[in-house]
Amino acid sequence: MTRSKKERLDAVAPMLEGKVLDTRRMVDALHAVLDPHDRVALEGNNQKQADFLSRSLALVDPARVHDLHMVMSCLTRPEHLDIFEAGIATEADFAYAGAQSLRVAQAISDGTLRVGAIHTYLELYARMFLDLAPRVALVAADKADRDGNLYTGANTEETPTVVESTAFRGGIVIAQVNELVDSGELPRVDIPGSWVDLVVRADRPYHLEALFTRDPRKITDVQVLMAMIAIRGVYERHQVTSLNHGIGFDTAAIELLLPTYAESLGLKGKICLDWVLNPHPTLIPAIESGWVRSIMPFGGELGMNDYVNARPDIFPVGPDGTMRSNRMAAQAAGLYATDMFIGSTLQIDAEGNSSTVTDGRISGFGGAPNLGSDPRGRRHSSPAWLNLAECEGARGRKLIVQTVQTYGAKGVPHFVESLDAVEVGRKAGFATTPVMIYGNDITHLVTEEGVAYLYKARDREERRAAVAWAAGATPLGLSRDRSKDEQLRRDGVVASPEDLGVRRVDARRSLLAARSIEDLVEWSGGLYDPPSQFRSW
Amino acid sequence: MTRSKKERLDAVAPMLEGKVLDTRRMVDALHAVLDPHDRVALEGNNQKQADFLSRSLALVDPARVHDLHMVMSCLTRPEHLDIFEAGIATEADFAYAGAQSLRVAQAISDGTLRVGAIHTYLELYARMFLDLAPRVALVAADKADRDGNLYTGANTEETPTVVESTAFRGGIVIAQVNELVDSGELPRVDIPGSWVDLVVRADRPYHLEALFTRDPRKITDVQVLMAMIAIRGVYERHQVTSLNHGIGFDTAAIELLLPTYAESLGLKGKICLDWVLNPHPTLIPAIESGWVRSIMPFGGELGMNDYVNARPDIFPVGPDGTMRSNRMAAQAAGLYATDMFIGSTLQIDAEGNSSTVTDGRISGFGGAPNLGSDPRGRRHSSPAWLNLAECEGARGRKLIVQTVQTYGAKGVPHFVESLDAVEVGRKAGFATTPVMIYGNDITHLVTEEGVAYLYKARDREERRAAVAWAAGATPLGLSRDRSKDEQLRRDGVVASPEDLGVRRVDARRSLLAARSIEDLVEWSGGLYDPPSQFRSW
Repeated sequence: MTRSKKERLDAVAPMLEGKVLDTRRMVDALHAVLDPHDRVALEGNNQKQADFLSRSLALVDPARVHDLHMVMSCLTRPEHLDIFEAGIATEADFAYAGAQSLRVAQAISDGTLRVGAIHTYLELYARMFLDLAPRVALVAADKADRDGNLYTGANTEETPTVVESTAFRGGIVIAQVNELVDSGELPRVDIPGSWVDLVVRADRPYHLEALFTRDPRKITDVQVLMAMIAIRGVYERHQVTSLNHGIGFDTAAIELLLPTYAESLGLKGKICLDWVLNPHPTLIPAIESGWVRSIMPFGGELGMNDYVNARPDIFPVGPDGTMRSNRMAAQAAGLYATDMFIGSTLQIDAEGNSSTVTDGRISGFGGAPNLGSDPRGRRHSSPAWLNLAECEGARGRKLIVQTVQTYGAKGVPHFVESLDAVEVGRKAGFATTPVMIYGNDITHLVTEEGVAYLYKARDREERRAAVAWAAGATPLGLSRDRSKDEQLRRDGVVASPEDLGVRRVDARRSLLAARSIEDLVEWSGGLYDPPSQFRSW
Repeated sequence: MTRSKKERLDAVAPMLEGKVLDTRRMVDALHAVLDPHDRVALEGNNQKQADFLSRSLALVDPARVHDLHMVMSCLTRPEHLDIFEAGIATEADFAYAGAQSLRVAQAISDGTLRVGAIHTYLELYARMFLDLAPRVALVAADKADRDGNLYTGANTEETPTVVESTAFRGGIVIAQVNELVDSGELPRVDIPGSWVDLVVRADRPYHLEALFTRDPRKITDVQVLMAMIAIRGVYERHQVTSLNHGIGFDTAAIELLLPTYAESLGLKGKICLDWVLNPHPTLIPAIESGWVRSIMPFGGELGMNDYVNARPDIFPVGPDGTMRSNRMAAQAAGLYATDMFIGSTLQIDAEGNSSTVTDGRISGFGGAPNLGSDPRGRRHSSPAWLNLAECEGARGRKLIVQTVQTYGAKGVPHFVESLDAVEVGRKAGFATTPVMIYGNDITHLVTEEGVAYLYKARDREERRAAVAWAAGATPLGLSRDRSKDEQLRRDGVVASPEDLGVRRVDARRSLLAARSIEDLVEWSGGLYDPPSQFRSW
């Protein structure tokens, strides 16, 4: 029998001054508030981490607090796994594992971590409003006032969603903040104090991961080639105006070719106007060259705040002059308001199924399954969307593009007969294989061989042939019947760089609008302030 | 060239006391704030209407304010169309038209209303965060304090979404409220004052539509039969635990059979636990009988507040003791967190495409396309979802159920060879036919003939045969090759009441847990306070 919210708040009340908890009493407060088997939301975003609260949670006494059911979008910090090893928590519903993917697989195998399900972000938030409402939420904010009002600014991310789904289900909301200020001293309110029960100043500012920063120095000539292929064979061909770019160097290369290569093709103003995207530093040259009309961000990006705040015409900036992101709204926009998702992957099988689960790692899905899916409820049309319609008058289709080099850095082919995910899923006892994007959802596949227009394949056999064609010199690619290649090209199911008017010899890094982080800083007029690990000067 | 936010606020400043506008200056304030061609969000929810603001907007001088581009979920009040006839507005992006559906069709035909697109709600909200951000938002709240903080309570609906998408894109937010209170006197804050520019006390409380109230007296024996068929042939067979019920008497009948018929089948605790649903009065008996675990509502329902607030174990009730709804979160939950959507329709064609567009009416889509779609990004599994998987290990599928009597009240068949929507869409110049739910998205069709398991059809021909079977004695149904019926039944593609163990003679109104509004009030312990038009006593 778990206690009511009132009983829990009564237990912690002696430690509080109003809603404010002393930093040193954090572990005591968790003991007072938590019951065994509670469903607990712990904010571990893609970027912002409630790390004071997660480190404190790892210090509770497992004899008093145990068997928690964690609901968290990301299992990304070491202590996120420590709590399972200690028995403080035993079950998790999550979306992404990232750096902890190996430990997650191990913990599942050891039986210390029971997986409810691995979700895509929007799916997890959806369930938090219905059957996964948290009893206690542990979140992070930039500032709080003494009434519990929170300022979350550029890194608002998922905080309002986690707080709302908890506060209106009789749950308790605890926020760690970087700074406590007096009433009325917040730049603005992002989350009303009436939804928040406890605020505590963290021992140090919350950890922020520079997840979407890509150093242009590391972009290769092959990635430039693939970016050119994508621009001609996908963006230009379908006149894609609204889109989401997944994380990685492949899409960073595309961003950096807009003001150069794409501009030389006369595409400015015709493609890439509206973006659902974190503030990618590599998009600065395109923004400054007038390519971009609007950006809706999932979160902030370390070092980008001054630049973003100076462009309220592009980013969502509040009356106070600072950005507000919103992970749930951006995921909805990425699902329903964009014509294209393009992202990199690690493995693609003969059917076109793609996954980032490899080598026994369970990395989760993040936003890709949602962003990389055709919303069957969509009813507005656009030229790009209609371009994929099966016939006149029929509904269109979202472009779901996967881009991948045929071989990885260590000579490991990215194309395989069967995904590692099949074996990983079997071992973990999942009901379905942890596929990130299913082959029959993918419409285009881009490799250095060219574009496979999978949506044009007439049947499963032709689809497999197109995947194998894109797989080039990998074993999967070499095993194909090459006598069919010419027919595939004539039918427009595949297109080589030559078919698209892309000259391989032009694919040079010198085409990139910025070739280093310093270049990006210069494009930003000095407003971009890169994190130290990206500074070479 | 439109003015900046600052210029507009400066123009209205002389009329304000802080953020508070005098009720009598509303039209003047709109003249001061609006520019021609502005994109304007006007809150016309399914239920809550910003009617003081819409009536005021209809009074502006079209010489000064004209060609507005309206972004609004519902075109439901007369003045919503008046502004187009007056030239104050010329374009609309919307989701639902309801009572104004005939005038909408007329205005499109006359050329006074240009349709951007007709959306499903979540799709429209998604675009408001990207390419349809409003310059000015006109919304409604229960209460505001003098700092602009808003209390929206049970009818929070879409207000936070509209406000956020405007306030963080340099737009101006104007809220009409029923009551102005002093700072600190709100029950709770639903929307922070830092997002709101102007508040004004409305001339009368906002209009609220009792859209989801269905009088059990009007439920027929045939609807009871269809409800029994649905419970046995769909809910029980697939063990559906999470679901959304569309509006109407068909689903109200199902709700009222849970504590009687379904209970007699031993289904309590096995089906219908978690609901995405407005507070339907007809669900009270199931809630009071312990059938329901949780409900996530899109909005409130007139007369249901006291009952809802007394069940914080079921509904999202805040620390202040009143409910908060959230249309965007509920639509996301309906998309990603439920296993089934079941709703009524008006027309179904031979392919299973369904539409509520008939007789030249353009009624829009509302939430049905979103709720009635299989989210391809879903990655968590459940027994019901896996039950529809094509094979072992493959992903499952959401149940999309349409329920309809073969003939309508006036002897008009609901099954047709071709939807009226085709002609309506053609006349209006739409790029695609305004289909509410596409035939290849529907998994089950329920009529008084039984259940057609469309997801089991092996090809288009078998699918058409199953639709025609369900169409019974309508011309579409009679035109079928009846010699195939037996094979369809043997293959489990269709099932009659007899196949499902439903006795037609048992289908009586007496099975309903409540047979009148009075019965519902009694079930609620006197807490449900029905609107006067539903009172016969």
